[in-house]
Amino acid sequence: MSKLLIVGTVAFDAIETPFGKTDKILGGAATYIGLSSAQFEIDNAIVSIVGDDFPNTHLELLTNKGVNIDGIEIVKGGKTFFWSGKYHNDLNSRDTLETQLNVLADFNPVVPAVYQDAEMIMLGNLHPLVQLSVLEQVKNPKLVVLDTMNFWMDNAWDDLLKVIKKVDVITINDEEARQLTGEHSLVKAARKIEEMGPDYVVIKKGEHGALLFHEEQIFFAPALPLEEVFDPTGAGDTFAGGFIGHLVKTGDISFENMKNAVIYGSTLASFCVEKFGTERMETLTKQEIQLRLREFENLTQFDIELTPKKVR
Amino acid sequence: MSKLLIVGTVAFDAIETPFGKTDKILGGAATYIGLSSAQFEIDNAIVSIVGDDFPNTHLELLTNKGVNIDGIEIVKGGKTFFWSGKYHNDLNSRDTLETQLNVLADFNPVVPAVYQDAEMIMLGNLHPLVQLSVLEQVKNPKLVVLDTMNFWMDNAWDDLLKVIKKVDVITINDEEARQLTGEHSLVKAARKIEEMGPDYVVIKKGEHGALLFHEEQIFFAPALPLEEVFDPTGAGDTFAGGFIGHLVKTGDISFENMKNAVIYGSTLASFCVEKFGTERMETLTKQEIQLRLREFENLTQFDIELTPKKVR
Repeated sequence: MSKLLIVGTVAFDAIETPFGKTDKILGGAATYIGLSSAQFEIDNAIVSIVGDDFPNTHLELLTNKGVNIDGIEIVKGGKTFFWSGKYHNDLNSRDTLETQLNVLADFNPVVPAVYQDAEMIMLGNLHPLVQLSVLEQVKNPKLVVLDTMNFWMDNAWDDLLKVIKKVDVITINDEEARQLTGEHSLVKAARKIEEMGPDYVVIKKGEHGALLFHEEQIFFAPALPLEEVFDPTGAGDTFAGGFIGHLVKTGDISFENMKNAVIYGSTLASFCVEKFGTERMETLTKQEIQLRLREFENLTQFDIELTPKKVR
Repeated sequence: MSKLLIVGTVAFDAIETPFGKTDKILGGAATYIGLSSAQFEIDNAIVSIVGDDFPNTHLELLTNKGVNIDGIEIVKGGKTFFWSGKYHNDLNSRDTLETQLNVLADFNPVVPAVYQDAEMIMLGNLHPLVQLSVLEQVKNPKLVVLDTMNFWMDNAWDDLLKVIKKVDVITINDEEARQLTGEHSLVKAARKIEEMGPDYVVIKKGEHGALLFHEEQIFFAPALPLEEVFDPTGAGDTFAGGFIGHLVKTGDISFENMKNAVIYGSTLASFCVEKFGTERMETLTKQEIQLRLREFENLTQFDIELTPKKVR
């Protein structure tokens, strides 16, 4: 079975949306990536850090879903990373209310020996130096995917450029792509990012879908139109987990198969936003995913006869 | 040959975008709809009104493209409708600088006898009472498509509801759909609009594409990612022209074929925004449209094996 190594936060989140408010619940980029990629029945493992305030039930949830947690360090007497945020009414933007780095402040990631030969690596949102450290511990991965955010552009620019240079795929949201490149046009932004290192650029546009760029090729997947988005927290990470999960499962990193990976990512993300936090991902079944893939097909596939006849 | 009757403005526009500024150039909803639908080699005709300040060259352009202009009234001593606007830097919004109704203030549309049996009607943006008057002059059209905007929601609410009740398809932008229904979710908004009359609802999201709703079915077409949008003026009307042009040409008003119509609409609109005003539409060729349809196919079509095997 192919191995996927995930690095990122495992954390507490407190979330407020127009629909309600949570106490400290399970959160973190690696958590969402792990739960999402676990749907592909691959051998995936998380490298992260928590304090001993982190409930065993959260770790058991990951284990029960098939996620290896040997690389999650538990710091005695330490406190787990905590983020709280409040979404605006349209759910397209949010304010961070509080960030407590806690044990994350001194995180030295250690990749378990059995995952040092992982075929694919998902560098979830974290300090670029932590991401780089993980990369240095793995031998010849077939594919490395990076997710990052504006915080590191503002606070660790040089380190961020170093890690961007070393990855094959970057997933980033539209405003961050613009900030990273100074280009308003996403087509131009993607081209500039490719010059920084990655061969493939995925730009996430939230409710407006996601774009995959590779040289002159572009693929687009919409977000599924939902009656109500309940809580967008983790949607981007869930997208990334679905994207790389499909690639690990199939072992095929062609552009054609990355299109499918983007569809899987969008499909998984469409579930994530239906409930608070990880709640929906905890109960998600393969049959539900299949049904929703069909919805994506109905949503986007058409049949126009082109002249000359189309060649796939 | 199937007939399409178009009603809407034929006008002067003065446009300012971050890329430049025009004097009074050819504009108007019916102009864009006419130029776009003319690409389908159908028998299309415009009902509109201009002043005698309107240059013959503009009318000849329409005629040369195959658009019948017998229904364009020329008012002696009258001045043509004039709109000027300035786009914001991201081109997603604009300010109206000036609107001169001129001859449009007293427009009583007269549908030429030979178009009173037109199979399809495109009610372009105009006062709802003018749209209703056109509808009353045609016999049993197979399909009526309505385009409207927020201005009529603010200024002619009751009349607008009357015309909405009588049409089969409405095309409307996302913010306007929200204003019309008080629903933020576009899925809910579309459902409410269907309750007002139309069987099909097309919500245009500008650079974020377009959604087609019919009962429980949804189809989505992205806007083609462009390096640069030069001038969005007329894009919505050009979309509408491509949409109904394909329906008139094929005579097929099934949901499946409306999907293709949405793709044609998006394709035509993607050209419109490449240059100022109608400039790009004036030189557009069928071969260019075919090539861009292939780009849309590459952009959106994927191939995931579903279980059980998909049935189209």
